[in-house]
Amino acid sequence: MTIHPIDVIQHKRDGLTLSDGEIHAFIRALVARKSPTDSPTDAQTAALLMAIFVRGLIPQELAALTQAMRFSGEVFNPTPLQAFTVDKHSTGGVGDKTSILIAPIIAAAGLKDPMISGRSLGHTGGTLDKLETIPGFRTQLPLPEFLSIIQQCGFAMAGQTPTLVPADRILYALRDHTGTVESPYLITASIMSKKLAAGLNALVLDVKTGSGAFMSKYEDAQLLAHLMVDTGELAGTRTVALLTSMDQPLGRFAGNWVEIEECIELFQHFSPDFAFTLTPEKLRLSQDLLDLTYALAGHMLCLGGKAQSPKAGAQLAAKLLADGSAFQHFLEMVELQSDDLPAAVNAFADPEGFHKPSVTRKLTADREGFLSAMDCTQVGWAVQRLGAGRTNPGEPVSAHAGIEMHAKLGDRIAAGQPLVTLFSEDPALLDEPESMLRETLKITAEPPATIPLVREIVAKDQQ
Amino acid sequence: MTIHPIDVIQHKRDGLTLSDGEIHAFIRALVARKSPTDSPTDAQTAALLMAIFVRGLIPQELAALTQAMRFSGEVFNPTPLQAFTVDKHSTGGVGDKTSILIAPIIAAAGLKDPMISGRSLGHTGGTLDKLETIPGFRTQLPLPEFLSIIQQCGFAMAGQTPTLVPADRILYALRDHTGTVESPYLITASIMSKKLAAGLNALVLDVKTGSGAFMSKYEDAQLLAHLMVDTGELAGTRTVALLTSMDQPLGRFAGNWVEIEECIELFQHFSPDFAFTLTPEKLRLSQDLLDLTYALAGHMLCLGGKAQSPKAGAQLAAKLLADGSAFQHFLEMVELQSDDLPAAVNAFADPEGFHKPSVTRKLTADREGFLSAMDCTQVGWAVQRLGAGRTNPGEPVSAHAGIEMHAKLGDRIAAGQPLVTLFSEDPALLDEPESMLRETLKITAEPPATIPLVREIVAKDQQ
Repeated sequence: MTIHPIDVIQHKRDGLTLSDGEIHAFIRALVARKSPTDSPTDAQTAALLMAIFVRGLIPQELAALTQAMRFSGEVFNPTPLQAFTVDKHSTGGVGDKTSILIAPIIAAAGLKDPMISGRSLGHTGGTLDKLETIPGFRTQLPLPEFLSIIQQCGFAMAGQTPTLVPADRILYALRDHTGTVESPYLITASIMSKKLAAGLNALVLDVKTGSGAFMSKYEDAQLLAHLMVDTGELAGTRTVALLTSMDQPLGRFAGNWVEIEECIELFQHFSPDFAFTLTPEKLRLSQDLLDLTYALAGHMLCLGGKAQSPKAGAQLAAKLLADGSAFQHFLEMVELQSDDLPAAVNAFADPEGFHKPSVTRKLTADREGFLSAMDCTQVGWAVQRLGAGRTNPGEPVSAHAGIEMHAKLGDRIAAGQPLVTLFSEDPALLDEPESMLRETLKITAEPPATIPLVREIVAKDQQ
Repeated sequence: MTIHPIDVIQHKRDGLTLSDGEIHAFIRALVARKSPTDSPTDAQTAALLMAIFVRGLIPQELAALTQAMRFSGEVFNPTPLQAFTVDKHSTGGVGDKTSILIAPIIAAAGLKDPMISGRSLGHTGGTLDKLETIPGFRTQLPLPEFLSIIQQCGFAMAGQTPTLVPADRILYALRDHTGTVESPYLITASIMSKKLAAGLNALVLDVKTGSGAFMSKYEDAQLLAHLMVDTGELAGTRTVALLTSMDQPLGRFAGNWVEIEECIELFQHFSPDFAFTLTPEKLRLSQDLLDLTYALAGHMLCLGGKAQSPKAGAQLAAKLLADGSAFQHFLEMVELQSDDLPAAVNAFADPEGFHKPSVTRKLTADREGFLSAMDCTQVGWAVQRLGAGRTNPGEPVSAHAGIEMHAKLGDRIAAGQPLVTLFSEDPALLDEPESMLRETLKITAEPPATIPLVREIVAKDQQ
């Protein structure tokens, strides 16, 4: 039976439930794009996306859409790894470099992490853009090489291949263009189809909430977490979501190389093999990054059977960082993914020295009090506009742009004390971000209420 | 300030009220289609149409959309007519040939009717397709000629020009393609923008309800009537809507030439100058057509100040048909719009003889009882499939295809009595319509409840 795109659109428009057959036929025809009579046009696809945006999807529709997208192209087959595969995914934050610490920890524990990452989007950073500041680092790996690197060092960090989940590429471009991005249903299908195409046994989701999250309302983030957990579990992947605070940049730095720098310094600080020690103040500024890394890795290790509980998993994660084995795995991965290993090693030997912004500017407090609030989305945009982000897809980003935070929310601030340092490769790009940051960093007489970093855990058993 | 299409889409998507500026900017950019950065794409327009479909429009948004569409191209300027202009519009029916009787009546009363008509759509007939069966008849008139014809004989009947309301042409094609046709808001904007572009002083709407209407649910037709009346009045055009029954074909015939034939025979029957008399039975079968003609024309004449009340207007309409002056105006219009007047006059001299289907088939009753029900949409599709309609835009239609009804709902039927005669120009097109009609015409032992022809009048004062 032929299913016509217009019938699918009208059913969703009228609030009816789409059948598995309708959803699969629409996605199959969308990707095929060969039959002008049966393939949906951009206009028809946009109409369906808007109907889904407004009407929503029931769990079985969301599961069908996710599966149809997952199998719309090639899928990664992890069977040759002969190991438990687990990955994490974040809905996007500022200064969020946990992936760079977590994947080596997971590999050091003996699990496999086929990590497919993304680029900077909106006000948030992208793991690929950060990794590409490592000299010679390749993020575009064909699937056989991706598999081979995981076999050798337990994980690989790469961008999506053109053959993986082509339906998401088409739908995402249209959503971006037609005002249908912020649907928890469409976000779930997009994220989960890609993660499921990686053939994961387990997945831990970091669903951001707070002023720097795409879903700033807590209830929206909650709904998204539940939808993703349900969809993952229905597809046979053990899925846990952590709702976490994104009210300030995570750790000390936000940008591209500066985030690699922060990770390398932490790896070296903790590794017994390196004679490198962070000052207690710098370590304190990175503490939320470490806490979230341990929490997420802890759930991953627990799901993978390496720990009895998420808490025991978090302790194991800290141990794998402290014994140097995580850094060892990271270096092995870089050896396999960088075409210029001597330069990469050289950069890691002095990560602060490798950071070469052409201009820096320090923003100081104009009064004493407590750092009590910021619009973290504005902070993210300031980082992007220093050069760390791009305006159009495919443009290069500045490796050295970014910010260093000298204080965290709740810190007591003296007048004239440095709050944040701005880095850029273009002096013309400093002024706007500076005023954005000056405007959004609030110093008040009273300290703010503290918000826990991990606010809620969503898992199948607890729903 | 530049208004970006995506912002307009997102506002409507989220149920916010669009500003006049947003709506006008979107429609202006849609029609301009010259700036690739600011002009909405088909996908963006489809997304907005679906958001409007699901979220609806408040009166001020609907008024703004209608006005933006109305002024998206050239408008007809009736000032040179120096007269009150009034028109009618039907939401589409089967056998509905009232326009062909009404426009000459309005002209005969001294008002001006710049009538812009449409083509067959779905299961319904189109006035242009009917008129074009008159030999040499031209329906594509440039605006100056359209104006000149109205100046000479009080009315003209033409198709929309490409320069009038171009926004509707773009939006209608997309709605048809993206499952967003049946929105009362989008239907109102489409109809009213075209009618308002004709610069009318007054407009009477025939909003069909019942089994042959696009809006078969009474409440939907009521909503549409109210939306159209409000929108017309807000734009300064006195607007009245009649909610009328479309539960069986109007009058004796449905098709193309056969509907002209029915009108010519009625004109001649009533005109004292012609020695032509319809049988009482044929006149009875056309009575609902005459009643609706008088009712609609009555409201038009009342709005135009030619009658004290719609009822007095209806009586005046009957008088203008009975004294031959309406037919005289019709013939003057044909003289001005036909390129082959002798052939047209010849056809009018013997309208039944001019009708030359290559095949006819008579459907008789298989039992006695009362003609109690039919799905009038199915009857309309049967007419279309006999050849009176087209499958794709631009295709020719059969002049001679159609049906003649030999009974009306509620009539007592003897076994073997003719119910309907089918006409076609292609023998292969008879079987399917015959079985459609056989299936849908119900004869039962009990007579059906009678439904009044005019069910409700919607006008500003009465809301």
